[in-house]
Amino acid sequence: MAEPLKVGVAGLGTVGSAVVRILGARAAELEARAGRPIVVTAVSARDKGRDRGLDLSGAAWHMDASQMARSADVDLVVELIGGAEGAAKACVETAIEFGRPVVTANKALLAHHGLAIAQAAEAKGVAVGFEAAVAGGVPIVKTLREGMAANRMGRVFGILNGTCNYILTRMEKEKIGFAECLADAQKLGYAEADPTFDIGGFDTAHKLALLATLAFGVQPDPDGIYVEGIASITPLDLQMAEELGYRVKLLGVATRTEAGVEQRVHPSMLPMDSAVARVGGVTNAVEIDGDAVGALVLSGAGAGGDATASAVIADIVDIARGVGGPVFGVPAATLAAPSRAPMARHEGGYYIRLSVLDRPGAAAAIATRMAEQGISLKSIMQHGKDDDTAADAVSVVLITYATSESALRGALDAIEADGHIDGAPQVIRIEKR
Amino acid sequence: MAEPLKVGVAGLGTVGSAVVRILGARAAELEARAGRPIVVTAVSARDKGRDRGLDLSGAAWHMDASQMARSADVDLVVELIGGAEGAAKACVETAIEFGRPVVTANKALLAHHGLAIAQAAEAKGVAVGFEAAVAGGVPIVKTLREGMAANRMGRVFGILNGTCNYILTRMEKEKIGFAECLADAQKLGYAEADPTFDIGGFDTAHKLALLATLAFGVQPDPDGIYVEGIASITPLDLQMAEELGYRVKLLGVATRTEAGVEQRVHPSMLPMDSAVARVGGVTNAVEIDGDAVGALVLSGAGAGGDATASAVIADIVDIARGVGGPVFGVPAATLAAPSRAPMARHEGGYYIRLSVLDRPGAAAAIATRMAEQGISLKSIMQHGKDDDTAADAVSVVLITYATSESALRGALDAIEADGHIDGAPQVIRIEKR
Repeated sequence: MAEPLKVGVAGLGTVGSAVVRILGARAAELEARAGRPIVVTAVSARDKGRDRGLDLSGAAWHMDASQMARSADVDLVVELIGGAEGAAKACVETAIEFGRPVVTANKALLAHHGLAIAQAAEAKGVAVGFEAAVAGGVPIVKTLREGMAANRMGRVFGILNGTCNYILTRMEKEKIGFAECLADAQKLGYAEADPTFDIGGFDTAHKLALLATLAFGVQPDPDGIYVEGIASITPLDLQMAEELGYRVKLLGVATRTEAGVEQRVHPSMLPMDSAVARVGGVTNAVEIDGDAVGALVLSGAGAGGDATASAVIADIVDIARGVGGPVFGVPAATLAAPSRAPMARHEGGYYIRLSVLDRPGAAAAIATRMAEQGISLKSIMQHGKDDDTAADAVSVVLITYATSESALRGALDAIEADGHIDGAPQVIRIEKR
Repeated sequence: MAEPLKVGVAGLGTVGSAVVRILGARAAELEARAGRPIVVTAVSARDKGRDRGLDLSGAAWHMDASQMARSADVDLVVELIGGAEGAAKACVETAIEFGRPVVTANKALLAHHGLAIAQAAEAKGVAVGFEAAVAGGVPIVKTLREGMAANRMGRVFGILNGTCNYILTRMEKEKIGFAECLADAQKLGYAEADPTFDIGGFDTAHKLALLATLAFGVQPDPDGIYVEGIASITPLDLQMAEELGYRVKLLGVATRTEAGVEQRVHPSMLPMDSAVARVGGVTNAVEIDGDAVGALVLSGAGAGGDATASAVIADIVDIARGVGGPVFGVPAATLAAPSRAPMARHEGGYYIRLSVLDRPGAAAAIATRMAEQGISLKSIMQHGKDDDTAADAVSVVLITYATSESALRGALDAIEADGHIDGAPQVIRIEKR
């Protein structure tokens, strides 16, 4: 019989506990797939006394994850501590230093230090699996890293944060405001007490950085991503979107452009009948546009203990079978330095909602400012008075044909300076099918 | 530098030509992914003179695919000849006999001879890739074989034949009949001159056999699959489906039941807001229900030269990287013998459309026959007269709660014997979300 693979699990929260539980419950099936037994021989967590409903009697307990990673107890280290620095980073670095493959769900760590980790891992000839870091149980990393090898990708985009999609879906269905919906999501456990990381778009940006690296062969560049969150979205925007045939989603989008790889996270209007637009609730969905395969869409659970553990265990089995190769699909040395396509050069259609003060000449002035920047309007809709507008203002929604972000910003700056509008314009980019 | 992988391609139709073209055009990128050059060193096809727009000057030409498979020119054999027997089978068997890994798009071959091929390949320690055999460019084989290792699957189902989905989508949108739509699909090249294999459900059955093997660890059993095609579907059925909140799709469905693995191909009503139901046109879509990951949906191009070549090349790159392992994810020796869950024991809801002769007592007699079999009706709708019904008949649609196929057949046999209906009942199974 083949030697067992000794697995050490650092971090025994929801995901870590599910990994240990499933590795035990499915031991025979996993051995058949892996060609060798997979055994949890070591664990690491802060609180040894907590009842996790797991039999950990066969596993060595380490208070320190890095100590576990360097111990003779383990052949493979599963890092589920989280965070871009500190214990998680030290644990992964130690494992690689000791020649042990790593499986991690840590998007922050890989977004910020993925290049160095990949270089170190490749130098040591050890694998790093991170399927669980993007879109939870959806096998998007495997699909991009292995399944799309023949393709030159034009775009990869998707719903990568279940909290935001849950909030937007509920706002749309129940016609309630963002703050109320967020509070409810927090009560139900779909949003953190400090929700900034999710609703601000930063979690999506970490995942997008990894997708862009896999799709375009560029070094992860989370700081080069344009990020807007969903806090400014109103029920009126969602209603207007529906009338116009769109759904509003927080998307991470990476596109190959002449100016480099454009990476952006912001609320987007997607045609209602596109596959990603239809994905509601906490579900994640990713579309890959490859030149050979066309549009490929994957959707499924983006979070949750068991779904994320499913991705972690798939990586463990691959490594147990001897699957290796470069961390991001191509050697880290060949990953291109980030070539940030500036957001000012972004091209696309726009939804613009203005609170226009009810005075003569306002509409004409707005139209003129748009024309001065060469922006063509596809439609103009006056929505009338509503809760969001001042007493002497009306909501006007403009839909533009494709234009550049810089032209749009120029027009909106001029419109604001003219003094015909109340408050800042609401701008939502339209993502083409 | 690592040794090149010498690839022989048998079959130079649309897919084979695309494979050769992309392997040439993307040589550098593929080498970076594979860790070694991938070079087409041999090809085999019947007509050497035909212009395929390919530079084949560097490749040895073989009139006979098996001769190519045993020649010293090749390390890996790509089989794109097609068909369950004959040249394709001989080519694959020869390659394995000579210890050469195989990549194939041949669902018929693997559905009928997959067990023997897997046993032979595993005995020789060679890999067999067949991503392209199911759902074209959609990486469903990789997902089931590798990505879902942690899961016990409850069901796998999907739209696996683009021709049928194209016809059903057009019938639904344009309210035209099956025959007219098929003729049009043939003119446009979406259906073969002899369409039986597609519209009869047999192509879907071959693919389903492979999905069931991957999902449930049973030997491929195409002859154990219940198969119905789409020729009986009428525009009225599609209209009724829409009114009831369903879409009609030709699905391949494999389910784990107490009686064994149930495998069936037939038109199904799917809730309109489910992910697979929304997939129109030639696109394929597969849903996997795993106990850890939940519902995972993949959709994309199920056919076409480049999309299928994308899947073929992903397999080639995996093998070039040294990825191997059992053909169906677990050793062939451990695949369970087919345990056919008999269709009579299928449980589910049903749509039944009857042409009821307009005479006293007919409705009561039908209701009584259903009740005798313990079948509860969820709704009864009388549609009135239409083109499909006899002059003195009206269309009546019944929707049942979950019942068994045998109870339903018993009721329908009794109803037919009673003589209250004209023609055979139309029965469409309802697939639950």
